[in-house]
Amino acid sequence: MTNSNVHRAPRSGKDNTHLLSIPHESHQPNREPRSYERWLLDKFIRMAGSPPVCFQLWNGDRLEPEHQVARFTLTLNDPKALYSLVTTPNLAIGDLYSAGRLDIEGDLTEFMETVYRSVHAAQEQWPKWLDSLWKNPNPRSSGIAEAKENIHHHYDLGNEFYKLWLDRAEMQYTCAYYEHPENTLEQAQLAKLEHVCRKLRLKPGMTVVEAGCGWGGLARYMASHYGVSVRSYNISREQLDYAKAETERQGLTQQITYIEDDYRNIEGQYDAFVSIGMLEHVGKENYPALSNLIMRSLKPNGLALLHSIGRNRPMLMNAWIEKRIFPGAYPPSIGEFMKICEHNDFSVLDVENLRLHYAKTLTHWMENFTHHQDEVTRMYDESFTRAWRFYLAGSIAAFRVGSLQLFQVVFSHGDNNLIPQTRHDLYATPTTPEHS
Amino acid sequence: MTNSNVHRAPRSGKDNTHLLSIPHESHQPNREPRSYERWLLDKFIRMAGSPPVCFQLWNGDRLEPEHQVARFTLTLNDPKALYSLVTTPNLAIGDLYSAGRLDIEGDLTEFMETVYRSVHAAQEQWPKWLDSLWKNPNPRSSGIAEAKENIHHHYDLGNEFYKLWLDRAEMQYTCAYYEHPENTLEQAQLAKLEHVCRKLRLKPGMTVVEAGCGWGGLARYMASHYGVSVRSYNISREQLDYAKAETERQGLTQQITYIEDDYRNIEGQYDAFVSIGMLEHVGKENYPALSNLIMRSLKPNGLALLHSIGRNRPMLMNAWIEKRIFPGAYPPSIGEFMKICEHNDFSVLDVENLRLHYAKTLTHWMENFTHHQDEVTRMYDESFTRAWRFYLAGSIAAFRVGSLQLFQVVFSHGDNNLIPQTRHDLYATPTTPEHS
Repeated sequence: MTNSNVHRAPRSGKDNTHLLSIPHESHQPNREPRSYERWLLDKFIRMAGSPPVCFQLWNGDRLEPEHQVARFTLTLNDPKALYSLVTTPNLAIGDLYSAGRLDIEGDLTEFMETVYRSVHAAQEQWPKWLDSLWKNPNPRSSGIAEAKENIHHHYDLGNEFYKLWLDRAEMQYTCAYYEHPENTLEQAQLAKLEHVCRKLRLKPGMTVVEAGCGWGGLARYMASHYGVSVRSYNISREQLDYAKAETERQGLTQQITYIEDDYRNIEGQYDAFVSIGMLEHVGKENYPALSNLIMRSLKPNGLALLHSIGRNRPMLMNAWIEKRIFPGAYPPSIGEFMKICEHNDFSVLDVENLRLHYAKTLTHWMENFTHHQDEVTRMYDESFTRAWRFYLAGSIAAFRVGSLQLFQVVFSHGDNNLIPQTRHDLYATPTTPEHS
Repeated sequence: MTNSNVHRAPRSGKDNTHLLSIPHESHQPNREPRSYERWLLDKFIRMAGSPPVCFQLWNGDRLEPEHQVARFTLTLNDPKALYSLVTTPNLAIGDLYSAGRLDIEGDLTEFMETVYRSVHAAQEQWPKWLDSLWKNPNPRSSGIAEAKENIHHHYDLGNEFYKLWLDRAEMQYTCAYYEHPENTLEQAQLAKLEHVCRKLRLKPGMTVVEAGCGWGGLARYMASHYGVSVRSYNISREQLDYAKAETERQGLTQQITYIEDDYRNIEGQYDAFVSIGMLEHVGKENYPALSNLIMRSLKPNGLALLHSIGRNRPMLMNAWIEKRIFPGAYPPSIGEFMKICEHNDFSVLDVENLRLHYAKTLTHWMENFTHHQDEVTRMYDESFTRAWRFYLAGSIAAFRVGSLQLFQVVFSHGDNNLIPQTRHDLYATPTTPEHS
């Protein structure tokens, strides 16, 4: 499969050699399925907990689910697709879907949610050898050189692409905060920025260092709404180009310095250390170093906030997501997260889990993405669009079924006695801005 | 030392064989200190980071601190007290103080805080062998039989004793919640009960199981303010006697059932699982079993709340506290705490650290205790009163310097999608009751 990997270059002609790469195979003739192929598929369906899915084969044959009505149809368009799916299910389903060799009829997100639940329930009965079949690989390294590759792979897809479906307020590619269920994506993303600022208890004149700043939305919000000075680190050149231009446009260049460098090279001491959606890319093995970094970067009475996708218990990232979407990604459990806090004498002050807010954020992104998918296909190609849909749908499903969490953790130096006494101040006035 | 242990029976004549036991030794004559004794004390002072303390010996000789003014005087009343202090400092200081063989001039709490800070700072420079001198022992077992002994040791000292210095509202022997710094102990303890009920999102008709109920204050608050039915487990007979009488007095017997049994024998399924101040006594080795217990006791959409003293990083309980005050006690770090949540598929929703609230609660207890200390001495004896003062002062200091934390952790089953969306509801109205 790797030999036939095709790197998709967007039509814009930029260097995109690290773009999403999807294996291609020429389709087999529409031959009759062999009896052992049916047997194999039947075993596979049972292994997956017999979800309410009709499996259709390349010649049109259909395997209806037993004792239930099919809510979805999964079509395998060639025999080799069946072998891939059965032998490396976690990785293959995304690749086959992206390549158009596997189709799903019915709502893709609901399909993913249904299959996750079915597989999770079935897993409890599995013999050990089956676990290894569905095992996800260890994430690749997140050393300084690899981190640049890993981040470039995803975040340098092109600002024009992300603009199509992220919020129009501040291009936040992280979980929003829905104070009220009816909030728009824009309101919820601004509310997230506000919620983070409140948790950091920012005051005019303070200094903030930000590890991984995306398109600079939080930096600008902190500078304009809280009057603080911000130093933001990012290794995605594309994002920084946008961040700098937007900061100039908003007249905030005096307050914000963007640095194109790895977070590990942060220097100086600050009143606040904040990192939204970077920890997923840090890698467990780097938590002690991150802990030491925060130890030396945070003033004695400063507050640190890390916002990250997480897990209820330690678990590797889904193989397809780690391979095709987020190389090196690893969402930690709170127990693992604590290796950052407990490596030094940090004191955990506040942990909030925004799991269902991320399901909602992703649903809004999916709506925007669907609205613009023809443009995406024109920019990249059909398989890129399909891969992206699969990733968004799978992520919504993962947050809905509870296999992914979203943690915001606030901590301070262990001997800081100027910590916030209560959390009443976070909720004293609405978090959602009135006009957005 | 153990041969000369004296078990203090309170004057009430109750069975108190497990009461605080303090080693006694007859005082040595007021002989001149030897030169090696001065040398030993000098080494000890340096090891402890040279705090601003003047050390006075049994013959009146004084060792003033170098390069600073002494804020406290510590008097060693006999030569053997010096050897105990130098060879087993963690355990000996409390025992010697209780027995009146060591005196402290100056505010006891500030003395403890100062010494903690001094020792903590010095520890970073210590050679390995010194660590072993200050090492705290592993907590004794918390099996079902031992738990009963351990709890009886502390909580069955007599309700009359605790009534003297706990809040007059609901006899809460756990951290209060000071919504405003000026709140009284009574207000803050009721606010704690309210805060816990809000975090559990209790609604009329719900069922709650409580592991370790003290004198039943939370059970009665939940029943009377939230209209829920409560089953409360406790192995302290004295506390249950009070809890039942008070529940009858408040006319809540229809809603509350008290069970004199170990939390491990909880049966049934409930909308909420709550435990305030019991986890410290559970023992790390029992966390997986506690996790399984909550797994089977909590309804699919139920919420669990555990409130416990904790640590920033794994650390054994102070030797004197574990030996004389709280046998079997072990306050976990959040990482260790997570062994409860991650042993099953629980989802952590909210962690709050109320460290400084406990320092304040203890300060209020200390004020009340000091006010009533002559009565305590009449009930028990002088060394009991001194031991208790030492314990309260040491605890205030430990929370102030950050060597102890207070964690409230809310979690649910991992697949519960009816979890609270935000925490705005916790803060919508004042937590502190208007009339208390």
